[in-house]
Amino acid sequence: MTAQKVASVFEKKYQGVGRMLISCPDRSGIVAAVSRFLYENGANILQSDQYTQDPEGGRFFIRIEFYKEDLESTVDHLRREFMSIADEFEMDWRITLASRPKKMVIFASKEDHCLRELLWNWQAGDLNADITMVISNHDDSRELVESLGIPYHHLPVTADTKLEVEKKQRELMEGNTDFIVLARYMQILSPYFIEHYRNQVINIHHSFLPAFIGGKPYNQAYERGVKIIGATAHYVTEDLDAGPIIEQNVSRVSHRDNVEDLKKEGRHIERIVLARAVLWHVEDRILVHKNKTVVFT
Amino acid sequence: MTAQKVASVFEKKYQGVGRMLISCPDRSGIVAAVSRFLYENGANILQSDQYTQDPEGGRFFIRIEFYKEDLESTVDHLRREFMSIADEFEMDWRITLASRPKKMVIFASKEDHCLRELLWNWQAGDLNADITMVISNHDDSRELVESLGIPYHHLPVTADTKLEVEKKQRELMEGNTDFIVLARYMQILSPYFIEHYRNQVINIHHSFLPAFIGGKPYNQAYERGVKIIGATAHYVTEDLDAGPIIEQNVSRVSHRDNVEDLKKEGRHIERIVLARAVLWHVEDRILVHKNKTVVFT
Amino acid sequence: MTAQKVASVFEKKYQGVGRMLISCPDRSGIVAAVSRFLYENGANILQSDQYTQDPEGGRFFIRIEFYKEDLESTVDHLRREFMSIADEFEMDWRITLASRPKKMVIFASKEDHCLRELLWNWQAGDLNADITMVISNHDDSRELVESLGIPYHHLPVTADTKLEVEKKQRELMEGNTDFIVLARYMQILSPYFIEHYRNQVINIHHSFLPAFIGGKPYNQAYERGVKIIGATAHYVTEDLDAGPIIEQNVSRVSHRDNVEDLKKEGRHIERIVLARAVLWHVEDRILVHKNKTVVFT
Amino acid sequence: MTAQKVASVFEKKYQGVGRMLISCPDRSGIVAAVSRFLYENGANILQSDQYTQDPEGGRFFIRIEFYKEDLESTVDHLRREFMSIADEFEMDWRITLASRPKKMVIFASKEDHCLRELLWNWQAGDLNADITMVISNHDDSRELVESLGIPYHHLPVTADTKLEVEKKQRELMEGNTDFIVLARYMQILSPYFIEHYRNQVINIHHSFLPAFIGGKPYNQAYERGVKIIGATAHYVTEDLDAGPIIEQNVSRVSHRDNVEDLKKEGRHIERIVLARAVLWHVEDRILVHKNKTVVFT
Repeated sequence: MTAQKVASVFEKKYQGVGRMLISCPDRSGIVAAVSRFLYENGANILQSDQYTQDPEGGRFFIRIEFYKEDLESTVDHLRREFMSIADEFEMDWRITLASRPKKMVIFASKEDHCLRELLWNWQAGDLNADITMVISNHDDSRELVESLGIPYHHLPVTADTKLEVEKKQRELMEGNTDFIVLARYMQILSPYFIEHYRNQVINIHHSFLPAFIGGKPYNQAYERGVKIIGATAHYVTEDLDAGPIIEQNVSRVSHRDNVEDLKKEGRHIERIVLARAVLWHVEDRILVHKNKTVVFT
Repeated sequence: MTAQKVASVFEKKYQGVGRMLISCPDRSGIVAAVSRFLYENGANILQSDQYTQDPEGGRFFIRIEFYKEDLESTVDHLRREFMSIADEFEMDWRITLASRPKKMVIFASKEDHCLRELLWNWQAGDLNADITMVISNHDDSRELVESLGIPYHHLPVTADTKLEVEKKQRELMEGNTDFIVLARYMQILSPYFIEHYRNQVINIHHSFLPAFIGGKPYNQAYERGVKIIGATAHYVTEDLDAGPIIEQNVSRVSHRDNVEDLKKEGRHIERIVLARAVLWHVEDRILVHKNKTVVFT
Repeated sequence: MTAQKVASVFEKKYQGVGRMLISCPDRSGIVAAVSRFLYENGANILQSDQYTQDPEGGRFFIRIEFYKEDLESTVDHLRREFMSIADEFEMDWRITLASRPKKMVIFASKEDHCLRELLWNWQAGDLNADITMVISNHDDSRELVESLGIPYHHLPVTADTKLEVEKKQRELMEGNTDFIVLARYMQILSPYFIEHYRNQVINIHHSFLPAFIGGKPYNQAYERGVKIIGATAHYVTEDLDAGPIIEQNVSRVSHRDNVEDLKKEGRHIERIVLARAVLWHVEDRILVHKNKTVVFT
Repeated sequence: MTAQKVASVFEKKYQGVGRMLISCPDRSGIVAAVSRFLYENGANILQSDQYTQDPEGGRFFIRIEFYKEDLESTVDHLRREFMSIADEFEMDWRITLASRPKKMVIFASKEDHCLRELLWNWQAGDLNADITMVISNHDDSRELVESLGIPYHHLPVTADTKLEVEKKQRELMEGNTDFIVLARYMQILSPYFIEHYRNQVINIHHSFLPAFIGGKPYNQAYERGVKIIGATAHYVTEDLDAGPIIEQNVSRVSHRDNVEDLKKEGRHIERIVLARAVLWHVEDRILVHKNKTVVFT
């Protein structure tokens, strides 16, 4: 499908569908207040997931998917109306339109399996995203990306030019970016960059974190003789490979597998794990609290 | 742990905790009505899961775990109060006390791995159940069962005595039974028996249903040369092996595995699958609708 | 990578590497005879896997990967020399060159996820195959396939033209085909066609066989309320969906998943299962005996 | 089954079955020499698995299961005969009798789920071992163990008495021990003890190593917010939690699971992983080289 077609499919499928994400200190009456608010505003709850970290004095999280006939034109009014409840319960909250595609930027490098998986899922109509650009420090994937009508920016990085390149990246992304996916980008971003896109940069680490932090995890896994390898999708923070984990998966290996075999098998896991994390982000299924995620699947 | 100790642990852990299970035609305002009801009756929602089969004209399912200080002594009042809401929305519903152990009867036969797993989980304090008796058509497990202070009834079955034996079984269970677990019991129950305990008899079938319905599933699996075997826990209905599926799991096998190997590996899967289904039943996590289950895990 | 580059990578990687696949009645001395033969002919065993179906009077299977310096130019001589041992032990056998790519034809239809996965693995250099053509009853994937330099033949099929189309297909494939992959082709092949390519046609069935044989397996799975779905790669035989199983895999689903969700999740499983089966076929890891496979992974 | 019955089942099942385990520098002719040796000594190969770490100058590993009619009475002769081949190829090797049960000592502590699993598998006739004793630093499992006719030694440990207790343990085990299983023993053994039982002490670590080395791994896992937890069976070395890994497995968890939930789920994984590692050890399926295992399953 083309970008236009993908967008129109989701626009139709999700017309009138909204998502409400709330996190606040737990106390009595939250669900009653929120569900009454929705009911009185003509919104019908389609799905609701909630979680309380600890019944006594803990934190409360809820994700509600609802339908309201004319939501697209009335959502701002709804948000304003909700503010008094939000204040009363000290809520962190947002209401999003499911029909509105998120602007997604992909950072890629030489290894293109994660990039391909994302493009594929998007093209298959599984991902309500508008891929506004692909930025890569290599030029290898230009043809693949441009053939889908997506702009491709080749920005090589060296130790010396890192900050300068980041500046260019931010300029390119300005106004075009809801979130960023590091599809095996392999470059460490500056704290400044990370701060700017807090909880909006998803990375795929090619190990089952926290095992094998840092470089060459498959070599480390081979040396240690593990019987299972894995991959981890997480939000990027200043601490390398230590951000909130979104999703992990694993695959069984054996003594027969050398480093190359681990990498090959690993690519399958990485693809699946990253794709799932991106889908959940796009569908507003993830709430971050401290260094952990609450994922309502 | 002894039966008494298990009971007292759960009594303390779950004091004041109630569970509300509702299924009804979907329409606006259900959650608002229910959550207001709980709020106004001094109950705090601990967890809530809901599911709508189909937003338009479908069926709505919800499971709410709540805390209310003096619930054990006021639950009947709460139930009476709820009736007007239940009527308004045409609800199938129940409110249960999490602190009250369910009376569980285990039917066993010669192969005791599933029986052992259940006894073990119960003894480890994972299962808030009162195992009121074990009924077996063999006498092999008497010592194991009686050593835990649980009554053991040896009732051999033949084609001729089947109905007579069922009568005895029902007499033994009368007043002592909330649900029954067929822990590889291997005898087909009469429609009369099944009707009497509708959605209260859990069976473990030693295949990944609907593959290999009927007898000797591991032999069938071996003949077919499958690369994965499985087990299925389901509620028993008049149609053999066709009742609502509660849980399934699988394990990888290869050409090297003969029928004995499949059985051995299968025993591990059966144990895990049955134990999980029983736990979910005990924790009121399963709603049955037509021939399917909604499991809120 | 281009086709040429893929070929050259494998040519170099596998220079001198041969594979010996044998199945014969089990008796004493087989391994001794074969390994002495290889030793005396200057071949070094790299890997060896064997399996005996049943020690007493059963069938013996072995796969040996060996290295012999000038194998490519001497393999015919080696084959002739081996004949006397093969006769003595009544062996079904073959010796293949690992460096020689297999000629692979892909049959595709509208749903292209399996086609894409194969093209991708091939392009990533994971598959030592020469994809000589893609045949599809739809024209949708032409651009994708031709952009990789692979011929694309659009041959629509109706009930009336089936045999005629098969004739064209066989003409196109004549001399260009070592094996065929049905990448969700969805058309039933004639017994004549199947007979012609015995154990050389790999199909992906979108269920965990033998559950849900026939059409619309995800609809069947939804109706039955299974908690796990799967996919099965098998060699095609005259009996629909009943051929020797090569590989299966599964994924967990829940009551929340409707038929569309099952299909979406299923596509991931199908891709992985089919890709693995094709890889094993390409690497001569599969021996078929009666209606089962021995897979030496 | 009783100990006597278990032993007699295996004695019958495995009469005449031997296992040959070899590791040596790789070179031409090893398989030819070994298979000719077996053939000439009237032994028929039942199964054979081999692995070469690296074809050029690497290490070669093989495990052969064979049948020889009067093996039990002639095995010493066979061993003597094999010495010249072993010397020629610089082999580390052993020939074992499959019918001879291994003497197994279990070290346990308060948490008994791993102990129970091992006893159960043994009792079910899955494990050809002679459990000569259970040593525990708590007295809780005495009844369970003694009811099966297995001696139980209660040896409490404190920081001060550690070495003294180890001395007692070694005295008790003297002549009664082929290998030791630490079934969640939770005490660190002295280097002296470990040296004495090199590659003969199997431990279960309650995390997916190398993640969460050291104490309280489930607490660590909870803090880190992982989405999958695991367990690892390994041979014990001087480096805590760093010995050769035998087997690992994992299970999916979510934000809903607190530390107690992780422990509960973890117990299931630990049981399965440890049981599998013990079975493989008993069946001579594990070869240790440097800090890794080759496991022929």
